[in-house]
Amino acid sequence: MERIPILKMGQFLLVTIQVEMHDKLAMTLQDDLTERIVQTRAKGVLIDISSLELVDSFIGRMLRDITAMSTILGAQTVVVGMKPAVAITLVELGLTLKGVRTALSVEKGMELLQVSLHAPATPGMSAGPRKK
Amino acid sequence: MERIPILKMGQFLLVTIQVEMHDKLAMTLQDDLTERIVQTRAKGVLIDISSLELVDSFIGRMLRDITAMSTILGAQTVVVGMKPAVAITLVELGLTLKGVRTALSVEKGMELLQVSLHAPATPGMSAGPRKK
Repeated sequence: MERIPILKMGQFLLVTIQVEMHDKLAMTLQDDLTERIVQTRAKGVLIDISSLELVDSFIGRMLRDITAMSTILGAQTVVVGMKPAVAITLVELGLTLKGVRTALSVEKGMELLQVSLHAPATPGMSAGPRKK
Repeated sequence: MERIPILKMGQFLLVTIQVEMHDKLAMTLQDDLTERIVQTRAKGVLIDISSLELVDSFIGRMLRDITAMSTILGAQTVVVGMKPAVAITLVELGLTLKGVRTALSVEKGMELLQVSLHAPATPGMSAGPRKK
């Protein structure tokens, strides 16, 4: 069965999204990721979307959901590697990925996670983007 | 165009292979990877194949070629995350991935690279598996 690999790097997990997402794959990823967070007691999750040429509302919602789930399990999420064109399209579509933190590269994302691990939780990030 | 992302992590590069490889994609990966090694002066390359259910002679050759190319450019390569079933099939097919180093996970692969960075080059690894 098709699965998106989750790689453990120190206290963080790295997910690289390369294939086109569909409902079932997104569900499997959520299941796998939440299980891995609990299993490895990961403190952060990096989601690399550098190979995505387009982020639509489906992916946007998935990123938001994953962020919220990880936050509840005690892991902070950073979405990394977004292409400039993707950012432009997102804003044009009115999707602002509220509550999802981003960084330019995996390295910058790791720095961000490392910093926020040693700092008190950012206000507004604790409960995630639950309210509409 | 379809591309396999190459992520920079410290002095290493991480390539996660998730999609089915074909000639053109393998060529693009070789081009991209060699360029990134030069650009970032990376000291090591990790190739994660944890989502591959099968490694055939084509992938085997690609892994060997990438290892040889990276070695020439001064970066050591470790293939990580091979599934047990893949290892069994490889041996049954008579493909032993000669010259390609492997590790169980990205973390173990990084440790291996870190150790060999601080040690003299292993004999027989320097020129790669060039001779038939």
